[in-house]
Amino acid sequence: MDAINNWMNNSLYKISKILEKDLKTGYHVNSDFNIGLASRGEIYSLLDKMLAVLFPGCYCNEKIPEDEMVFFIEDALREITLKLSKHIRDVLSDESEENNIQKAFEAVSVLIEQLPEIRKALLEDIKTAYNGDPAAKSLDEIVLSYPCIDAIATYRIAHTLYKLEIPVIPRIMSERSHSRTGIDIHPGAQIQPGFFIDHGTGVVIGETCKIGKNVILYQGVTLGALSPFDKKGNPLRGAKRHPDIEDNVIIYANATILGGNTIIGKGSIIGGNCWVTESIPPGTIVYNKNEIKMKNN
Amino acid sequence: MDAINNWMNNSLYKISKILEKDLKTGYHVNSDFNIGLASRGEIYSLLDKMLAVLFPGCYCNEKIPEDEMVFFIEDALREITLKLSKHIRDVLSDESEENNIQKAFEAVSVLIEQLPEIRKALLEDIKTAYNGDPAAKSLDEIVLSYPCIDAIATYRIAHTLYKLEIPVIPRIMSERSHSRTGIDIHPGAQIQPGFFIDHGTGVVIGETCKIGKNVILYQGVTLGALSPFDKKGNPLRGAKRHPDIEDNVIIYANATILGGNTIIGKGSIIGGNCWVTESIPPGTIVYNKNEIKMKNN
Amino acid sequence: MDAINNWMNNSLYKISKILEKDLKTGYHVNSDFNIGLASRGEIYSLLDKMLAVLFPGCYCNEKIPEDEMVFFIEDALREITLKLSKHIRDVLSDESEENNIQKAFEAVSVLIEQLPEIRKALLEDIKTAYNGDPAAKSLDEIVLSYPCIDAIATYRIAHTLYKLEIPVIPRIMSERSHSRTGIDIHPGAQIQPGFFIDHGTGVVIGETCKIGKNVILYQGVTLGALSPFDKKGNPLRGAKRHPDIEDNVIIYANATILGGNTIIGKGSIIGGNCWVTESIPPGTIVYNKNEIKMKNN
Repeated sequence: MDAINNWMNNSLYKISKILEKDLKTGYHVNSDFNIGLASRGEIYSLLDKMLAVLFPGCYCNEKIPEDEMVFFIEDALREITLKLSKHIRDVLSDESEENNIQKAFEAVSVLIEQLPEIRKALLEDIKTAYNGDPAAKSLDEIVLSYPCIDAIATYRIAHTLYKLEIPVIPRIMSERSHSRTGIDIHPGAQIQPGFFIDHGTGVVIGETCKIGKNVILYQGVTLGALSPFDKKGNPLRGAKRHPDIEDNVIIYANATILGGNTIIGKGSIIGGNCWVTESIPPGTIVYNKNEIKMKNN
Repeated sequence: MDAINNWMNNSLYKISKILEKDLKTGYHVNSDFNIGLASRGEIYSLLDKMLAVLFPGCYCNEKIPEDEMVFFIEDALREITLKLSKHIRDVLSDESEENNIQKAFEAVSVLIEQLPEIRKALLEDIKTAYNGDPAAKSLDEIVLSYPCIDAIATYRIAHTLYKLEIPVIPRIMSERSHSRTGIDIHPGAQIQPGFFIDHGTGVVIGETCKIGKNVILYQGVTLGALSPFDKKGNPLRGAKRHPDIEDNVIIYANATILGGNTIIGKGSIIGGNCWVTESIPPGTIVYNKNEIKMKNN
Repeated sequence: MDAINNWMNNSLYKISKILEKDLKTGYHVNSDFNIGLASRGEIYSLLDKMLAVLFPGCYCNEKIPEDEMVFFIEDALREITLKLSKHIRDVLSDESEENNIQKAFEAVSVLIEQLPEIRKALLEDIKTAYNGDPAAKSLDEIVLSYPCIDAIATYRIAHTLYKLEIPVIPRIMSERSHSRTGIDIHPGAQIQPGFFIDHGTGVVIGETCKIGKNVILYQGVTLGALSPFDKKGNPLRGAKRHPDIEDNVIIYANATILGGNTIIGKGSIIGGNCWVTESIPPGTIVYNKNEIKMKNN
């Protein structure tokens, strides 16, 4: 026990000084944004609050009586306005604090004014899910137990902030949903209403994707970049890197569709495990005739 | 700051009224089931309690002294009976409240009487895991750190309620485990004891699958439907849509096996990334001779 | 209600006795390690504390003032030393309690002395991420919102304990990160600095993998074993079963690379969905020319 005490009294401080020096002088990270674990926890709660406003029967703790609904919603929106604009202000970098406060408030007010539109899109998403999955017994089952609702609602909220050029917070939102659902939708993607992702684990949708109406994806589908680098090996920041998926397309499990010039035409069906890096004309079925071989065990 | 206050005083109420109207008159969702966030939280706790009864050394908070074990178990079962039957009652739709109470209690009592049988099956699952994974150093390591234990235990509990035709709650249970493990087992699947899923992220097992004894799956395996639609484009509700896997089959990473008529015969091995939509005779090795091409970088 | 009370009074105790007997006499699990749910919760908190020491701006609850930083770090390290060594002692199996205490303390002190080295490696990892992902707007965004930071930091901590032959706890750590990120890195793998995993869901890295400097993986990549069994069907415990990846290799989404003799040479690029079970010479591009077929829908 003496050795332990000696080590704690002598070594811990030395190691702490090394780490402190490294944080202060070295290649440090994460001092610009004032957005620690507590702030992220609050952003997560505000996302839950937005879901409760959109689907009170499912995302509130308790059932809200009908005649109290409008007050519940207004209270929730007021809390979201005040708290979310504070977090947004903390990630803005204008030198004038007043400008940051102004821009943060404008962003939150745009987001809140969009909520009825976002709800309308989500109802289209839920309808596509019900029509697309024979295992769904009711619309309510979808809202209560399908991971795509969490992922797509979070995406539609985060996308609104992304368009307003709010840094980091849209990505914090999308990663929270990625962690819970396995579905990784970059807030920059542009996705029309009527979108369904079944099961969803492993789905990746890149920053510059465009997805039309009534599109269905299954688990493991990647809509990604062909290569993140240009010919000189530098990252292709800002370029269109990810595919476009037109209306009424279905893409089965683990298909990989890559490239900023790739367009999957209206009404096409992409089979499972397909690897597509070129455009597909409308109304085409693409399938993967991968030869399997057999022998006796 | 005035603009902010003005907006909050004027716009929030208007937006709240729009959302309220939409909830009351439009295509609303999720008013039938009285199963909000708090109820789902309690269902999750009850699942944990069942795991604690099945594996007290691992899923209890603290070690239970041996001579208190039977009291701990009885207390836990009593709590599960009372609370779970309340939640089940809330999702039943018989017009007579008394019938709902009766049916809910019967469902919980059947589930609790099945727990020793479920534990026996899980011990077979753990044995298969130990024999199937060279990285496992002990049985305890598997129960303490393998995600398949969470996924398969949850499945075996949810399946019991699914067979009793309890709506939504089995799916809420399976999605909780899907969120934590990346393994999506529909409660309707029929899975014999001795089942092991290694790593597991991305595994999808459909509602009408049947899986025999001592089957091993790796990450990313899909046992799914060929298409969710019939020839007229309507969802195939109720039909047998997913494959059967016979005893002693091994299916390697990211293989996709589809279709309600597909049977993988006893003792077969399906190689990684294989795409199988037809039956495979017993004792067959299936592998994917996908040609890779190489060039100098 | 009488039926319910009768059943509770008569059946619950009987079922409890069956489960108790099964736990005491049957093929039980999980009595050796004293590491229940509460202990695992504390191990998770200690992991968070280590992340807070490594990246205080991101993983602390609140911003730490610069002149308090060294005290914050020292306090955190002291708490980690005391609590983690207690949990490690509980999983050690030497008959002498004193030896267990000694070994546990030595393990924690080695881990804490390694933290500056671990931080240096993580900074290389973050740099590779920034250079490898055009969607990353800043280094801070990566630390705040990329799942690979959680996965790789946890791996570097767990690997240090694995090398010191601490049972179970490294796997409990890696599974926690697997659950949150979908990235499953076995603590036994040997991974050089400058490692980046983009998106990450479904990535599996086996126990005996070796990975060089500046390697990039995408979602769904498996670095696994060809088969877990030897020719007699016994698990290959202890053998080298997983591939080696040399410096500056990029492996795209859903590629599967298997086998203990497989070496992917320096600077090679493995295309998405490729299936590789043999060594690849340095500087090679491997791609999967999987034929897709098309027909009109």
